[in-house]
Amino acid sequence: MKPVKVGLCGLGTVGSGTVNVMTRNAQEIAARAGCDIVIEHIGARRDNPVCSTGDIRVSRDIFEVVQDPSIDIVVELIGGTTTAKELVLAAIRNGKHVVTANKALIAEFGNEVFQEAHAKGVSVAFEAAVAGGIPIIKAIREGLAGNRIEWLAGIINGTGNFILSEMRDRGRDFADALKDAQNLGYAEADPTFDVEGIDAAHKLVILASMAFGMPLQFEKVFTEGISRVSAADVAYADELGYRIKHLGIARQTAKGVELRVHPTLVPYKRLLANVDGVMNAVLVKSDAVGPTLYYGAGAGAEATASAVVADVVDLARTLTVEAKQRVPHLGVQADNLSELPVLPIDEVETAYYVRMSALDKPGVLSTITQILSEAGVSIEALIQKEQPEDQDMVPIILVTNRSVEKNLMAAIERIQALPTVAGEVVHIRLETLG
Amino acid sequence: MKPVKVGLCGLGTVGSGTVNVMTRNAQEIAARAGCDIVIEHIGARRDNPVCSTGDIRVSRDIFEVVQDPSIDIVVELIGGTTTAKELVLAAIRNGKHVVTANKALIAEFGNEVFQEAHAKGVSVAFEAAVAGGIPIIKAIREGLAGNRIEWLAGIINGTGNFILSEMRDRGRDFADALKDAQNLGYAEADPTFDVEGIDAAHKLVILASMAFGMPLQFEKVFTEGISRVSAADVAYADELGYRIKHLGIARQTAKGVELRVHPTLVPYKRLLANVDGVMNAVLVKSDAVGPTLYYGAGAGAEATASAVVADVVDLARTLTVEAKQRVPHLGVQADNLSELPVLPIDEVETAYYVRMSALDKPGVLSTITQILSEAGVSIEALIQKEQPEDQDMVPIILVTNRSVEKNLMAAIERIQALPTVAGEVVHIRLETLG
Repeated sequence: MKPVKVGLCGLGTVGSGTVNVMTRNAQEIAARAGCDIVIEHIGARRDNPVCSTGDIRVSRDIFEVVQDPSIDIVVELIGGTTTAKELVLAAIRNGKHVVTANKALIAEFGNEVFQEAHAKGVSVAFEAAVAGGIPIIKAIREGLAGNRIEWLAGIINGTGNFILSEMRDRGRDFADALKDAQNLGYAEADPTFDVEGIDAAHKLVILASMAFGMPLQFEKVFTEGISRVSAADVAYADELGYRIKHLGIARQTAKGVELRVHPTLVPYKRLLANVDGVMNAVLVKSDAVGPTLYYGAGAGAEATASAVVADVVDLARTLTVEAKQRVPHLGVQADNLSELPVLPIDEVETAYYVRMSALDKPGVLSTITQILSEAGVSIEALIQKEQPEDQDMVPIILVTNRSVEKNLMAAIERIQALPTVAGEVVHIRLETLG
Repeated sequence: MKPVKVGLCGLGTVGSGTVNVMTRNAQEIAARAGCDIVIEHIGARRDNPVCSTGDIRVSRDIFEVVQDPSIDIVVELIGGTTTAKELVLAAIRNGKHVVTANKALIAEFGNEVFQEAHAKGVSVAFEAAVAGGIPIIKAIREGLAGNRIEWLAGIINGTGNFILSEMRDRGRDFADALKDAQNLGYAEADPTFDVEGIDAAHKLVILASMAFGMPLQFEKVFTEGISRVSAADVAYADELGYRIKHLGIARQTAKGVELRVHPTLVPYKRLLANVDGVMNAVLVKSDAVGPTLYYGAGAGAEATASAVVADVVDLARTLTVEAKQRVPHLGVQADNLSELPVLPIDEVETAYYVRMSALDKPGVLSTITQILSEAGVSIEALIQKEQPEDQDMVPIILVTNRSVEKNLMAAIERIQALPTVAGEVVHIRLETLG
């Protein structure tokens, strides 16, 4: 069997990890793929000292790789959505299969990229774009192919999960935990992408499209970050039997599809609640198999490389049969995608944790519960804290039953306007994941 | 695209679940597979009231299904290793692809079955044979294809896990928990297969062969059941910070491959320690991605059907390309399997929980620790309980560091012979899974 030839563009963290894994495990990989898989050509502006490229041809112009007629598969690991998009489209037009770890590219331009690939009869594989080394795309597109997927919920940003884990385990506040994450190299100097949920939204929209068989609609994801989660909320949640996790949630409802990323209270006994540090996990609820969960490293050089190489092996196994797309890009055939409506966050139904500061005098609590009741929001649990000695306000913490978001928001607006309530009324969504 | 035609043999729990899932989700499944998938012919000695077979042709002689020229894929769900083996081999000889949920057949006769399939150019798919609806075979053979897998540890028998969960949560002893499992339909009237670890051994050997690329060697699995785990051990383990789980463990070592099923102490913080009731989970440690974990229902009509249908969709997606084996049966090409030696349990190195009853007088404890030390077994933790008022013996519980099994067994033999020690010295293996 003649070897499958890979052209690799980008020699940063994941690129060098990919070179190292493919070199170290070349023998095992060949035994699995049924043919040798060789990196034939690397496109990188500069070398990376953490990997040796040996005799491999290296071009400083990455576009030389996609023009190289010997290359079967182009691996795009440069990131971003400008040059990367040009590069991927050029590779497709040259009849190359593509493997990418680029979640932004797939989430924002996937529909266009897949259409081009479909027209040219090549595959674009992107296992590494979601949850790093966890084979979650394979699980959803192939492993659960017999199921109607009802919902999924995932910890799909390791940086955010590390920060929330630190806040809980060490009682730190957000700013301190973020500093730790930056010192350890888990968070960027500008952490917006991770802590405000944009990275998670990219991944969520990819998972949801495969789960429900619909086109990618990144712009419709509701996104709320973790920067406003306080140490007090983490502690109160604990007291109530919950952990706060930054979840990406996608759910099919009769009215439309929910796509949302936000801090979420989760019962402490759930496996998802016990996924700590930089680890990722995705819980998928399907009609036949019920709940399944997939856990592993969501980032890192070799963890992400693991997913890149799995895609390369998948393609190599197909190439030895015949160059065709075996598995459709979004799990269902392109002409069978459904234009499912995405629900605005106002229409979403979930439970809530609500915290406020109120005057400790008769009638205040009953006014608050009355407002909630009038809005159709019922209370599942309530903690009223002792009045701190030097203050006349007490914290009131409550957990609601499932309610429509706009009803809760209307109640909060009224509560916030009460002269007996001070400061912001905090709300964090709560999912039992049952 | 012309439809893919399935012949289904066996209409018990999983068979009827498969009919129901394929009927209910026919539209989604067709959208994913790229063609309709129809059950064309059912072979079953009798009908099953829980599923409607509608207009499908039903034969009382299951062999009529494998002789039916219209059938592309035969699904074997009759179980056992005699008729099932004949049926599968007949299907292969007739050029049919095969999907089976039969772990005993694959574990004991897989080498022979795969060889026949290879010769005929057809695939035998068996995702449903291990951990029910969890796509663990796909994860190992495809999702982790870039990795060298170092070890794996799984809760792969739901009945056993239910019993151990009940023992811990309700302080029940084994016999009572087993009765509960039988009343709930989780355990058979003769529970040997589940509680003595034979079922888990079948699944473990399949996982190990794929993980390490070696032929199936069921007869070499060391198997110890949970029937001797006592309520006291469960409680002491808890006190020491562990849960007792019935694990299947496979590990590559320099000396050979460990293949063992036995009760195992696991630190309570690990996700595996928190997999309760009838659920299954498999933790896989690989060189590139690190640890990944896969969790879900390990049994049940529709959970197992989920895996059966995934295999059928996989085959259908390949059939639309060209009828060939895309993924080798054991993950690596048949001529690349390694004849790795399997370590006897004596040579295995792990940590241990040890419990004994000893006279509460000076010198007894030091004699015991000296014997362990002379055998090269060091102690990580020790609890000596208060002497119960009406007895002159006290329980001594200790946790060892990692030791070679034969060294521990030699020490236990010497300890058991001491006049100051009464009854059996209990040992349960302990894995930190770190």
